[in-house]
Amino acid sequence: MKSEKISEFTTGRLSIYLRCLNQLAQEGTETISSQGLADRFNLNSAQIRKDLAYFGEFGVRGVGYDTEGLRQHLTEILGLNRRHRVGIIGAGNLGLALANYKNWEASSFNVVALFDNDRARIGKTSLTQGHAGNNPHGVKIYDVREFPTLARELELEMVALAVPRDTAQAALDMVIAAGIKAVLNFAPAQLEAPDDVKVKTVDLTISLESLSYFLAQPQSEGESDKS
Amino acid sequence: MKSEKISEFTTGRLSIYLRCLNQLAQEGTETISSQGLADRFNLNSAQIRKDLAYFGEFGVRGVGYDTEGLRQHLTEILGLNRRHRVGIIGAGNLGLALANYKNWEASSFNVVALFDNDRARIGKTSLTQGHAGNNPHGVKIYDVREFPTLARELELEMVALAVPRDTAQAALDMVIAAGIKAVLNFAPAQLEAPDDVKVKTVDLTISLESLSYFLAQPQSEGESDKS
Repeated sequence: MKSEKISEFTTGRLSIYLRCLNQLAQEGTETISSQGLADRFNLNSAQIRKDLAYFGEFGVRGVGYDTEGLRQHLTEILGLNRRHRVGIIGAGNLGLALANYKNWEASSFNVVALFDNDRARIGKTSLTQGHAGNNPHGVKIYDVREFPTLARELELEMVALAVPRDTAQAALDMVIAAGIKAVLNFAPAQLEAPDDVKVKTVDLTISLESLSYFLAQPQSEGESDKS
Repeated sequence: MKSEKISEFTTGRLSIYLRCLNQLAQEGTETISSQGLADRFNLNSAQIRKDLAYFGEFGVRGVGYDTEGLRQHLTEILGLNRRHRVGIIGAGNLGLALANYKNWEASSFNVVALFDNDRARIGKTSLTQGHAGNNPHGVKIYDVREFPTLARELELEMVALAVPRDTAQAALDMVIAAGIKAVLNFAPAQLEAPDDVKVKTVDLTISLESLSYFLAQPQSEGESDKS
């Protein structure tokens, strides 16, 4: 198992800073100090300065950060200045839940296709198959055997794997063979990929572990948060 | 919107260290230095020392950490030395996917009940309703109106909200009224809770943002990882 690199922790925090800045921009706040940002959103001001310094000089001493400028910089650094086309392998409950996830609408990601090997699902959409969720249009479910062709035709850049553990590596191999370089894996499996492909495994139990910590050490913190 | 506190970033890293130590213990590695841990799992050794020092002195200079001792310490700190009983509100695609998520088996969490307001779903299980997934037993779907009673009878400690954005706050209010102190929220909504209740909102788009960063800055890192 390879594990988190620090740079990945950092990009996770940049995502959070960007959400804060988007909210400040909406509210019309033009400048904010690292301390102001920390106080407002329960962050750590030293960590903010360190993280942002890594990507260049964004702030002006005594004035703070230019909200809109920093927002645009972070959007560019994170590659969110254009929409990415995403495919999902697996149209079971998880794949359908992902396809119908309401947050995509406001995000830089566009889920354009689902793939499955179940004939009963192929040809339907994420709305006709299973529960409708919140996606007003629905995402079409294709035969997974068409993936190599459709990945190019649909110009997919990222793929989410929502398949059982036993088939995850085979699905990943197919995705890599089609030239995809960024994969989000939801299967609880340790997957092998070449160095030029980024595979991020999402472990849903980790989110519960921070809640468990809170129950074990309830004095530590009590605020709601976004992560 | 309130956002991540540093202590939550830290608990996230502790979860990752624990996964690494579990693997080392399985392999029979008795001691490991922070540098050894960092090299093996692509972590940052200074960060490891800082994070662990916060919870007391675990290492011996020149020898490193006692793998089994540190593993037990982290398990206790994170409150994972016993299983937590979890309920899920919402038996749509996401709720069913969570209930059938294979990783629970090896985790400290036990999903014991689903709740929904849809008569077509109530009384079924996560296996008879929707796609079977990997859970060999299935989780029963109860009428959400029974939640206040069943939360106590089933001794629920944590609840996952897998409901539409518009009903998330009402669901959370019901959960809090039943005395639950730890809630994992999957709805893209900003929820209000009292200080003694921990609400962790999981934003699935954040995981994709680190992939987007990799595509935008492909030289930055290329390894598979667990997060």
